[in-house]
Parts: sequence; structure tokens; C-alpha cells
Amino acid sequence: MSEADVIVVGAGLAGLSAARTIAAAGRSVVVLEARDRVGGRIVNHDLGDGKVVEMGGQWAGPGQDRILALAAECGIDTFPTYDTGKKVLYFGGKRGTYSGSIPKISPVVLFDIGQAQARFESLAKKVPTDAPWKAARARHWDGQTFGAWIRRNTATAGAATLLALGTEAVFAAEPDELSLLHVLFYSHSGGSFQRLIDTTGGAQQDRFVGGSALIAEKLAGQLGQEVIRLSAPVTKINFTGRQLAATTPAGQFEAEKIIVTVPPLLAGRIEYEPALPSWREQLTHRAPMGAVIKCQVIYHEPFWREAGLSGQATSDGAGSRVVFDNTPPDGSPGVLLAFCEGDEARRLGRQPAQVRREEVIASLVRYFGPKAASTAGYAELDWQREPWSLGCYGTLFGPSVWTRYGQALTTPVGPIHWAGTETSPVWCGYMDGAVRSGERAAGAVLTELGG
Amino acid sequence: MSEADVIVVGAGLAGLSAARTIAAAGRSVVVLEARDRVGGRIVNHDLGDGKVVEMGGQWAGPGQDRILALAAECGIDTFPTYDTGKKVLYFGGKRGTYSGSIPKISPVVLFDIGQAQARFESLAKKVPTDAPWKAARARHWDGQTFGAWIRRNTATAGAATLLALGTEAVFAAEPDELSLLHVLFYSHSGGSFQRLIDTTGGAQQDRFVGGSALIAEKLAGQLGQEVIRLSAPVTKINFTGRQLAATTPAGQFEAEKIIVTVPPLLAGRIEYEPALPSWREQLTHRAPMGAVIKCQVIYHEPFWREAGLSGQATSDGAGSRVVFDNTPPDGSPGVLLAFCEGDEARRLGRQPAQVRREEVIASLVRYFGPKAASTAGYAELDWQREPWSLGCYGTLFGPSVWTRYGQALTTPVGPIHWAGTETSPVWCGYMDGAVRSGERAAGAVLTELGG
Repeated sequence: MSEADVIVVGAGLAGLSAARTIAAAGRSVVVLEARDRVGGRIVNHDLGDGKVVEMGGQWAGPGQDRILALAAECGIDTFPTYDTGKKVLYFGGKRGTYSGSIPKISPVVLFDIGQAQARFESLAKKVPTDAPWKAARARHWDGQTFGAWIRRNTATAGAATLLALGTEAVFAAEPDELSLLHVLFYSHSGGSFQRLIDTTGGAQQDRFVGGSALIAEKLAGQLGQEVIRLSAPVTKINFTGRQLAATTPAGQFEAEKIIVTVPPLLAGRIEYEPALPSWREQLTHRAPMGAVIKCQVIYHEPFWREAGLSGQATSDGAGSRVVFDNTPPDGSPGVLLAFCEGDEARRLGRQPAQVRREEVIASLVRYFGPKAASTAGYAELDWQREPWSLGCYGTLFGPSVWTRYGQALTTPVGPIHWAGTETSPVWCGYMDGAVRSGERAAGAVLTELGG
Repeated sequence: MSEADVIVVGAGLAGLSAARTIAAAGRSVVVLEARDRVGGRIVNHDLGDGKVVEMGGQWAGPGQDRILALAAECGIDTFPTYDTGKKVLYFGGKRGTYSGSIPKISPVVLFDIGQAQARFESLAKKVPTDAPWKAARARHWDGQTFGAWIRRNTATAGAATLLALGTEAVFAAEPDELSLLHVLFYSHSGGSFQRLIDTTGGAQQDRFVGGSALIAEKLAGQLGQEVIRLSAPVTKINFTGRQLAATTPAGQFEAEKIIVTVPPLLAGRIEYEPALPSWREQLTHRAPMGAVIKCQVIYHEPFWREAGLSGQATSDGAGSRVVFDNTPPDGSPGVLLAFCEGDEARRLGRQPAQVRREEVIASLVRYFGPKAASTAGYAELDWQREPWSLGCYGTLFGPSVWTRYGQALTTPVGPIHWAGTETSPVWCGYMDGAVRSGERAAGAVLTELGG
């Protein structure tokens, strides 16, 4: 049995940021982590020679002040995502390339996507990010899928498909899986939908030298081994007495307060005594995660750069439909980051690994030519199969969830506080939101503890 | 450690029907039940003098052949739900009464609801109940909420409200919580939406003498104490070896096959080794349950009958919005069954018991007059707070679930078979569907075991 002022459940960025804030205020804290590593949805993959790529969250961009400040405090530099040269659009079986942000497609489709997106962005601005259910039209927007909205607000199949591709890239889900209100909120929380999908100037602008997971590792190092307990999944939280108790296979821990930073779906699988009120319990029944397989295809060199290509591709076909250049900052080896998201993640997740790899590489050949077949390595992480995430990038809010259960996301239950990127009104779903949520929950706990 | 040919998880009607079929084929079976009683979502409440009312599922009707046959085999009779006299419609703050099935409201609203319902019923017939995802327009119907469909297919607020009230009564959920495809499928699985909401001629036509839970008790009695293990929640199913093992606090059980009959949400909280494939795991993330508080208000006599009222009421106001006469067959005591469903269940579930009771009775006074205030007793069950159901009546399928995860409902995973009323193509969500699902799964398991 071990005691602290505060227990934090989960050693992702939210949990580590919370613990850091609590420790800095002179309170004792213990972080209970189910995995045998810190980082949660961020994790590095070793490429050898001291180089890494990330198998989880990896980018930062303008407006993500907290994650950038935290990285800077840890001595971790950023470098720009490779964004030079033409982008590939593979659409309706045809490959094209374009510069800038406007693909070479039918002007009718371009006009259509433009008007739909303009309408969308104007609605998004009307959603209060700290309480989406308070938007004047919240019930109406939360009563429909984003897919239904797209179908009603586009005149061309091409525009609908492009919006679906954007949705897959941002949520690892299809538009029909999401509430319109959620997509509006989420976009507003990061600034705009355009900002979420942009590279330079947007959420994919910058990368971290040494990999994003280095931030988690540095924070864990500062907190120390006595604070971070790995392989310690919390199975039960008993808050019947004055001191609460968290049960793990690694022993029992007692504290005055607890901050649960895991996504609502996983929080719902913890046993609580007394039982959580149904308004909180029911939220956890309505909080599935996105479906994504992140694939890193390694080449001896980034051959597409010489051909004037940025390594970025968007496609409505099979395999990977969103691709980025993920080469290390010194330019070697060449790495194409190929996402399989939403329906393609579900389909390819059921295939044997060899078939999946072949399909992913075949899609890269369609986008970047035959050289893409000459791989030097391959790594993938199917987040659908991660028992301590149950999906990525984050929680999918379907219709009716924000308006009926939104308040339950952050309202404490007795000594139990909730954090995690899903609870952040700013950059919800991003690493930046995770940091903000941990700091917010830690602040609330410190106030309750009396400074 | 205990051994059997087959383990059944859950002693509701699905589990008991499965066990009965397996035992009848000469195979050994053990039923592991989390609660200290059998019946699952059916449970009796003792009124004294050998009389009961039901706090869970209670009705049967035409077409529900399996539950009716099973009850008859158990020697349990049915009697008609009291359906004589006028019905109350409390709408827009005004009380009216009507005979038959057509309420006295504006002819414009009547015409509107009529055309919307006719359109709905014609779509419902096009959904194959054994594979809703195979409907020609499945993707389109599953990409929208039922609420959005209602708004697009009604011209009057009155018609939209009446359809919402029907939805609450059938699903204990609001139209915006449900996929259009699900409501179409569900209606077709019971015949039609009209049949689901009708008393005489519909799903509320008949009641069981002695209460529906008597069926479960009789089945359990036939199976015997050695077969039914109460207070034995299954926490883990290990199917790595040739024999599978189910872990409970009451010990470990081994078998060749296992039938999990609990709803997908609860099935998802069992630990599996090896982990379930993500296509099945993800279904359990997308399977919340309805929200309902079932209230029985007891009177010395059924005073409404003398006043020419059936005891049935429908309302768009606060408190209970769906009321039935639930008096025992001999006419005493008088019982009004008052449902709080969907948003009202969520709102009233957060109130203290006393406030909730007062609100429910106040609504009955509005529908049936001041005599409704003179109660002789009150009982309620908030299914939102039942840890081994996590809601009622059943699983809510939101947009995208049927088309993306429908097959996972019944596809076995190794030696694990799935049953429960949610898996039945006929009378899905009803007691009848539960019985059918148990018999279907038992048949499949017996075939695998070699007859």
C-alpha cells in the first residue's frame, strides 16, 4: 500500500502534465500507468542510428502553445514537416499533382467544396468550445451526422468525397460516424477545419527532434521512478472513505484525490465504488475511438523529393488515403507515413499483416511511382488492437452525445477528476489539448486540496 | 474448478433458453449469472397477497410465438392488458381523451403523422431483418439519425412530437440517438412500428399470470441449482487452449464452448484472452443501452376504469409520458405503470427519489385527475443504475453501427458464440427475441459439438 496526495491514472501527456503541476506545487503524486511505457497515444519507433519515427501523435502547429512550450522547457526542438514540392491527388482512379493547397480538379467541384467549407467554418465559429451544448443550434446540429450535413450541403460527389477524406484524416472515422456538432466543435477548438488539415500553417506544421514521445520520457524522468508506476492498470477506484483507494495488480494506492486521464471508453471499464452516477456512466457507453493503422514505409532515400514531390498524397482509393513525408530531419532514411483510417483501417485490420503491407505499398506506388515498391523497411501500429487505447486518434462523438452528456466529460464525481485531450476546449484531440487538460485538472485538484 | 460441455453467460431468457436447449440434447451446461437472481431484464415485484407487477419486460403479443410457447410449456397463462375505455393524450399542455387508436388532435397533424408513418412502414419492409446492412439503401439510412428523418418527413411539429413519443416508448431513447436504419430494422423485426406501439393486436397485448419473471424462474428450476450459478459474474474468458476457461469470483469454469448472452456493452467489459478481434471489440464500444425508469404506482382500486378510462396515457410533458394500466388480473389493487424514458429518464434519474416520485405522480394527476394523488404504494426501478444491465430496454444502434459492425453481433469468435435479444432478427429487443437468440446459439453450438 502506497500513499500520496493525488493519484493520476495514465502516463500520457495529460497525466504527466497533471503530475508535473501537482509536484511543482509541493504535493505528492503517483502516476499509475497500464502499459510498460509512458506516453499513451504517443510512442517512438527506433529506426537505428539514433533516429526515430512516431507511431502515434507526432505533429504540432501554430496555436498549440502548451505542447510547444512544454517541449521547449524539456529542451526538445522542432523542425518543419517536409512541405516542399507538389502534392499528389489520386481521385477517381486518376493521379494528378498540384502545388499549394488547391488540387487540380474540376472547377465545379472546387467551387462546391469551397462553398460547403465556407458554410461549415461559419457554423463552427458559433460553437462555444468550453460548452458545445450551449450553441444556439446545438440540438439541431447534434441531431444529425456530419455525413448527412455533407450530403445536404454539397452538389457534387467530388466535394462530398473530399470532405470525407478530410474527416478520415482528422478523426480516423467516416462522416457518418460523427455528430455535426462534434465536427464543428472540434474544428473550432483547433481554430478551423482548414487549420486541422493544413501542413504549413496548420496542425501538421512541425515535428519534434527525437520524436514526440521524448517529451513524455523527459517529463517522466523529471518526475522519477517513485512517481511513475508502469504496468499498473487501475482496475478499481473505491471512494467510499475519506481516503480513496486505487487497485492495480501492482498493489493498492491511497490518496485524497484522483485524476483519471484515460479516454472515457477506458475510464468506463474501471470499477467504481460507489458506482458512478448514470449521467457519467452513460457517457462512457457512448465514447468509441477512431480506427487507424499508422504505417511507416522506409526507403534508402526520400526519392520523391528529387522528383519534385512533397511526399504528401490524398486518395479516394484503397490502401493508404493520406500520406506524408516523415523522413528524419537530416534527410535519411526516406520515410513515407501512410495512414489507413476509418473504413480502410477496419477493412485492412482484418487482413493478414503481409496483405495489409502489400496493399499499403501498392497505394504508394500509385501515388509516387514504381520506386515506392523498393522499400528498405516497414513498421506499423494498428491502434485498433491496442488494449490501453482501444483506438485512435481520440473519442468519436456521435449524434446526441455532446448535448446529452457533454457536461459529464469534466464534471468531477466526488474526489474523481477527469482529464485527457477529449476534455480540452482548446485543441481537443491533440497533444496540446492533452497537456492543457492535465494542467486544468491539476489546478482544480490543488484548489480543492487548499493550495 | 468445474467442467461442462458448454458455459452460458447470463441467466436471462436468452441464457436460460440456450441452456435448456443444450441440456435437452444431452449435453452438460452451466449458466453463470452475475446477479443473485435469474431473469436479467425481467424481474417481478411483490405486491403482497401473492400478486406481482413486473419491473422489467412484461408483455407479449401476436407473432411472439417462442416466448408464448415457452410460457405455455411452463404452465404459465396469459391475460389481456386492460385496454377498455378511453385513452388520454396530454399534448401541448392540454388534456384530451379518445377511443380507438386515433387521438383527437388537429386533422392536419393526423394527416401528417399518417403520411410520415406510411412512408416509414414502406421503408421498414425493405430491410432484411437477418442482415440489415444488406438493404439496398442501408448506407444511406444508416448515415442519418431517425430524428433527422422525422424532421425531413413531417410538416408539423405535432407529428414530429408524436413520432418522438413513439420512439421513447419503444426504445427508451430519443430519435436523435438512433440510426434510421436501426428503427426501420427494429420495426420490421416485430412486424411494423404500429405493431410495436399497439396494445391489443400489438406488442403490449398480453401479460403473464404470475409475472413474466416466473418464466425465467420455472426454466431455472427445471435446469437445477447445479446448472445455474448465481452471483458469478464472468470477468474473464480465456480461450487460448483446447478447453476454454471462464473466471468468476465464485470460481473457474471450463468448457468446450461458451455462449455470451449479455448485451454487447456488458460483453465488452469481460476480459478475453486472446483479445477479441477489433471488428468485434469495436461493436461493444458502440452499443449503449436505453434510459428508462419504470414506476409502478399502486392504488386501492383502479379508479380510472369506473371513469371510462383505459389507464393508458401519452404525453409530451414532464414526468411519465407513457402510462398503462398494470393492475393484476383480478382487478386489485389498481396499478398505473408509469414509464420515464429517454431524456426524462436522464433528467429524473438525477433527482432525489422523493422528487422523482412526486413528479411522476403529478403527471398521473394531470392525466387521470386528483384521485391519482391518493396512492397506496409506489415502486420504481431505474434501469440506468443496474450494473448488470447498464440500461434498458436494449442496445441503441446509432448511425454507422449496423452497416459497419452488424455482422459482429452474431459471428462467433473461436469457441465464443453470441446471443441475447439484440442478436435476434425476429422481435429484436423483446423477450421473444431473447428466447429465439438463445435457441439459435444453442443450435449452432450443438452442431459444432457434433450433435
